[in-house]
Amino acid sequence: MIYPKKLEEIIEYYKKLPGIGEKSAERMALSTLDMPTEQVENFSTSLVEAKNILRPCRICGHITDKEVCDICSDEGRDKNIICVLEDYKSVFTFEKTGNFKGVYHVLNGLISPTEGVGYDDINLPSLLDRIEKLENPELILALKSNIEGETTTLFIKKILEGKNVVISRLSYGIPIGADIDYMDTVTLDKALDDRKQISE
Amino acid sequence: MIYPKKLEEIIEYYKKLPGIGEKSAERMALSTLDMPTEQVENFSTSLVEAKNILRPCRICGHITDKEVCDICSDEGRDKNIICVLEDYKSVFTFEKTGNFKGVYHVLNGLISPTEGVGYDDINLPSLLDRIEKLENPELILALKSNIEGETTTLFIKKILEGKNVVISRLSYGIPIGADIDYMDTVTLDKALDDRKQISE
Repeated sequence: MIYPKKLEEIIEYYKKLPGIGEKSAERMALSTLDMPTEQVENFSTSLVEAKNILRPCRICGHITDKEVCDICSDEGRDKNIICVLEDYKSVFTFEKTGNFKGVYHVLNGLISPTEGVGYDDINLPSLLDRIEKLENPELILALKSNIEGETTTLFIKKILEGKNVVISRLSYGIPIGADIDYMDTVTLDKALDDRKQISE
Repeated sequence: MIYPKKLEEIIEYYKKLPGIGEKSAERMALSTLDMPTEQVENFSTSLVEAKNILRPCRICGHITDKEVCDICSDEGRDKNIICVLEDYKSVFTFEKTGNFKGVYHVLNGLISPTEGVGYDDINLPSLLDRIEKLENPELILALKSNIEGETTTLFIKKILEGKNVVISRLSYGIPIGADIDYMDTVTLDKALDDRKQISE
């Protein structure tokens, strides 16, 4: 073994991060050793604190350090327009466009009959609860255009049939099969503007 | 601010790592939150432990978790052949070639008159001490081919003049100005084989 054990350990951890291979992980680990001790200690503390402090918003399921996230508690946002997303990472992607003035609902998954993920395994019951309390609810479904995404979209459309909810989904500005988190903000803006109503 | 404060914090730390930009740091931070808590805690602990436990080898200055590093305490290595390097990262690069059976001496810097770095600001005195104790010492200087590297090479050559030391430097298999840490092992092997004696 070329590296001392402790160094090998942090190389292994860096390798678990997305897009980091052997060589990058080595460079990152060696560079960590060159940092001032205080900086490494603060990094170390922040990692555990971030993991412990951050939790789902009680209302929308987005990640937050409060009970209710900044978006849900923002008076300036339209609580009647709810953008439904698969995970909280997509919230950050949407927020970067800066154009959406509604709120979010994070499903934390998608319905998948083949993998046994049903309606109440994801944050769908809480979405229905939210809708019940609104006067003119509008849902914008921004889910992946794969089987699970389509299944979930159809399920939501069906379960809300007859209720007074305007449902739309993002327009097909988004390339089929692509991950929402990797979308450029222009395409995402376009898809938001051209959203297509799917309720009758 | 789009991200919760704690998340922003770990993004900032990831950005300090080499080759990591805004987008990569965000992905790495979000992926950290998705890791099991235990894994994040262990990562966090390892970072601080690596920083605290790893220190310079008493003999050669290479980084180690012991008082004397594995290379210096390896009976199978020729203690008379010392490869002199600027920093410990280069030791790992050399060890990867697997062909060098001597030992190392890490200068932890280079002589630089313009920046006021002199002979005893780097690990040169300890190198001379080591050489004094050897019967047939041979030095292989593997320093950068820039001004500081050449200055240090010339200084070592001059200070050892008249002493019974064979001094060589790596052959010009290494591209001028390139960093030794980014060298492929084949080029490095070649440069090691073709090393050129510079003592008379």
